[in-house]
Amino acid sequence: MEWISKSNILIVGLGLMGGSYARGLKRLGFHVSAIDTDAASIEYALSEHIIDRGFTQVDEETVRQADAIIFALYPGVFLQWIREYQHLFKPGLRMTDVTGVKRCVVYDVQAALRPDVEFIAAHPMAGREVYGVQNSDDRIFRDANYIVVPTGKNTAGAIGWCAGLGKLLGFRHIAVLSPEEHDDMIGFVSQLTHCIAVSLMTCSDNTHLAEYTGDSFRDLTRIARINETMWCELFLRNREPLLRQMDGFLRELTAFREMLAAGDAEGMKEKMRLSTQRRAMFDKK
Amino acid sequence: MEWISKSNILIVGLGLMGGSYARGLKRLGFHVSAIDTDAASIEYALSEHIIDRGFTQVDEETVRQADAIIFALYPGVFLQWIREYQHLFKPGLRMTDVTGVKRCVVYDVQAALRPDVEFIAAHPMAGREVYGVQNSDDRIFRDANYIVVPTGKNTAGAIGWCAGLGKLLGFRHIAVLSPEEHDDMIGFVSQLTHCIAVSLMTCSDNTHLAEYTGDSFRDLTRIARINETMWCELFLRNREPLLRQMDGFLRELTAFREMLAAGDAEGMKEKMRLSTQRRAMFDKK
Repeated sequence: MEWISKSNILIVGLGLMGGSYARGLKRLGFHVSAIDTDAASIEYALSEHIIDRGFTQVDEETVRQADAIIFALYPGVFLQWIREYQHLFKPGLRMTDVTGVKRCVVYDVQAALRPDVEFIAAHPMAGREVYGVQNSDDRIFRDANYIVVPTGKNTAGAIGWCAGLGKLLGFRHIAVLSPEEHDDMIGFVSQLTHCIAVSLMTCSDNTHLAEYTGDSFRDLTRIARINETMWCELFLRNREPLLRQMDGFLRELTAFREMLAAGDAEGMKEKMRLSTQRRAMFDKK
Repeated sequence: MEWISKSNILIVGLGLMGGSYARGLKRLGFHVSAIDTDAASIEYALSEHIIDRGFTQVDEETVRQADAIIFALYPGVFLQWIREYQHLFKPGLRMTDVTGVKRCVVYDVQAALRPDVEFIAAHPMAGREVYGVQNSDDRIFRDANYIVVPTGKNTAGAIGWCAGLGKLLGFRHIAVLSPEEHDDMIGFVSQLTHCIAVSLMTCSDNTHLAEYTGDSFRDLTRIARINETMWCELFLRNREPLLRQMDGFLRELTAFREMLAAGDAEGMKEKMRLSTQRRAMFDKK
């Protein structure tokens, strides 16, 4: 199937991201069903017309009718769900996901799948520091990146289909990376930054300083409000790349500390010039 | 003098902060003169009516007529300026500054001053990642904190006068801290965060990742575009408090790294819960 409105989309896991996909797809004219074990999430989504139909348990008929499935689950439960219900899948079914780590998920899922259906991984980099379908909003895609993460098992058709979903949902930028490239990149731009933000909040009791904080401190720690269950799982499932990124950062900050301790003004200025120059390139993109 | 409009304000150093003060004070009806060695800055400020009069060298008559002086200079040149020109000061003159570090400046300045004039330190925490009078804008004060930093030598009258300036300029929050409290606080909320942002940009060549960065990375590194001359001086002049803060942060991030390496999910979650709880308190203020 291509992305034809009126086709049946099933979203498994109706949190911030599943809910935001649902809003966007329903607005585009798709028929959107959702499964989530949390009754309050399903009730909210139905009452707000975010979805057409919702279930707190797997409804076999809905799985059978699905033309596409979007998995917005924690990585740990995702593979199990597929193993349990793939006998219901329509032949030719295409599936994608929103998981923040790829290497540990995509190969196992593809190995477990029936040969007549296809899973193509994607990562919508549009997380927020709030959670749940109650905070879902498809406008969060507008300034965000969407990464298609194919393996050698994926067809060109499925890659195009998955990129098309990102375009339909209004993502600013669509990219394609391998699972390995994706996980290294995400270890740096997302996971390392969350580790830094958390450590900045926990390294001393700074709550009495709240009234003195300006934009810079607030910007650096905005992501320190963190869903510990989800992020802990993401960190552990991307352990090696993240450890490598943390070590690189720790070495660099320690080197800067040594320059300060030694009064090496020129060394510090050199780092600041490099930092300024690199950061300026980010603002151009 | 109190903050009476029509009185003569002299601003020494017309960059981002001096220019923003000038705009705010002129709008309030003060007569604003400025001295800056950079002719382009003075010309720009005159042509944009940011100041009433401007000079690229010290104009003795203007210094004599000043009812108040605001120093918006790098810490290193500030004391020298006072030593050279204080014979011109009107008796009873009140002076303040915008310097980002206090311990290394305020005691020396106060010790060098004539007994019939008073210097009361202040720190408007409204820096931006842009510089120069061309970027000045007194709206940057609206969401910012203003800290009055008195010593035992300051009179209650001068403390109130300095706080009044912050109120007039429209700062969101006015606080009073000792130089020691101020420098410890600023080492944590401002200087440490800048060191982190710089190290995040310099620890690896990440420019090819620009297209993948989401809000969190951009937020964490916005301040990595940094005026190396100013910040290097601020870091070196606040070396001990900043080293202490860097060490505390490095220890904490290393501890988090060890938890990840050991697969200690509960330890990481505990840190994330503490971080979330503390950061939530920041959003209330």
